[in-house]
Amino acid sequence: MGKKVVVTGVPGVGKTTVVTGALEQLMDEGITYTSINFGTFMYEVAVREKIVENRDEMRKLDRTIQKRLQKEAAAGIAAASGTMNVIIDTHSSVKTPAGYLAGLPEWVLRELMPDVIVLVETDEDQILQRRLGDESRVRDMEGARSIAEHQQFNRSLAAAYAMLTGCTVKIVRNEDFLLDRAVREMADILR
Amino acid sequence: MGKKVVVTGVPGVGKTTVVTGALEQLMDEGITYTSINFGTFMYEVAVREKIVENRDEMRKLDRTIQKRLQKEAAAGIAAASGTMNVIIDTHSSVKTPAGYLAGLPEWVLRELMPDVIVLVETDEDQILQRRLGDESRVRDMEGARSIAEHQQFNRSLAAAYAMLTGCTVKIVRNEDFLLDRAVREMADILR
Amino acid sequence: MGKKVVVTGVPGVGKTTVVTGALEQLMDEGITYTSINFGTFMYEVAVREKIVENRDEMRKLDRTIQKRLQKEAAAGIAAASGTMNVIIDTHSSVKTPAGYLAGLPEWVLRELMPDVIVLVETDEDQILQRRLGDESRVRDMEGARSIAEHQQFNRSLAAAYAMLTGCTVKIVRNEDFLLDRAVREMADILR
Repeated sequence: MGKKVVVTGVPGVGKTTVVTGALEQLMDEGITYTSINFGTFMYEVAVREKIVENRDEMRKLDRTIQKRLQKEAAAGIAAASGTMNVIIDTHSSVKTPAGYLAGLPEWVLRELMPDVIVLVETDEDQILQRRLGDESRVRDMEGARSIAEHQQFNRSLAAAYAMLTGCTVKIVRNEDFLLDRAVREMADILR
Repeated sequence: MGKKVVVTGVPGVGKTTVVTGALEQLMDEGITYTSINFGTFMYEVAVREKIVENRDEMRKLDRTIQKRLQKEAAAGIAAASGTMNVIIDTHSSVKTPAGYLAGLPEWVLRELMPDVIVLVETDEDQILQRRLGDESRVRDMEGARSIAEHQQFNRSLAAAYAMLTGCTVKIVRNEDFLLDRAVREMADILR
Repeated sequence: MGKKVVVTGVPGVGKTTVVTGALEQLMDEGITYTSINFGTFMYEVAVREKIVENRDEMRKLDRTIQKRLQKEAAAGIAAASGTMNVIIDTHSSVKTPAGYLAGLPEWVLRELMPDVIVLVETDEDQILQRRLGDESRVRDMEGARSIAEHQQFNRSLAAAYAMLTGCTVKIVRNEDFLLDRAVREMADILR
């Protein structure tokens, strides 16, 4: 029985960098993980079932069908974890024009039943900087506030996920100049 | 199939002003909503079933009966939304002497299944000011802290609501001198 | 039918002191509570069923068995509350190397169905001071931040608990030099 670790983080927090670093460390110890992007996996389910032909059509799906696809994707990933460790790359919430949308609603969680949910976080100012690139040094109060709000909401969601599944919730801080520490913490969780 | 939008906010945040403004804007576009106050709707269910004769009796109801009324009210509102857009006016949580009480517990959510939950918010100092009226200019640290705590708890609850239903959670800030912006944001969600 | 009050707080917040003080006050009024430590109660269930022989073995239990024991413990406490008031001493979350673990996951809550969940809290600096003892006066930024994070996560969890059960969530602040106030607030909830 493999481990199921969900890794989340707002855009720009450096989730992929941290995961890649941790997986490299673990490879030397003979520990391997299969990385699965939840959205991509779900899209592949939809293609296989001939529900869509390209990714754009995913967004326009009827909500009932979308829910069914989410469930099937979650069940498929859970089945895969029977024989391997899996990292599930997704979001605690996605920011949409209609507000925050839970990345792991109840029907996904009941199928997936993850062992751990990781929140990769850092200060909002650092995330903003990373999003804007180094050339931009202006302080964007509104932007920073909105990232802080998003990260806070992601934590609250993670608490609800933990209540429902009994998984643990680990916050890994990926701060500027301290990538090594974030990688080490991530490796400790995956090990 | 109409939209079901839950609108919440702590007392004094100006929820009604924002909603009224947004509905006026939308009326020009031919978009209409029926506003339903959850507590009033539930009371009417109780009167119809001859469980109570006046509103005071609602508070003294046995918990099992209260729960049943909540479910029936939620189911009734969901049924109504089959033919019209509804705004459900309620609270993310109510502050009682025994602590915060969830406005949308599981059994309500499973019937209601809202599309969006809106949290109308602003800084605690502004809310305090609005509650006390303009004549009062003293800074009430204890009061401000308690409003901040309430708003934070409301967000955490909203996250749990989103996990269970898959609804989105939208935070609309109703700041002093920026009512226009709050109204526009609310209209965008309802549109 | 007795009351079921869950009391939680991070290590060092002074939960026991507050509860003891409140129970003393209530005894004079003829109100009695039976205090049950959730972990101990669960351990006793496991011993009775000959699953473990000592407490160390509890941690190494298979997850399915652990879950079953948690459910049985919760059901046992709920049954006990049929004839007496109970205080359930547990944690909103436990900090483990793999992250925060919910003290009251869904399967526990559905059996226990508490009336109130109390979060005993205070400022992170005060908790740190209490943990380290008075001789230590150094400010431990990292430690303080981690306590603040834990308390915040406990609140978010409590919100999810409230959504699922309809219990109220009461935050009782146990601040330095203000123990009397915390005791009074706790007594008000238990009364």
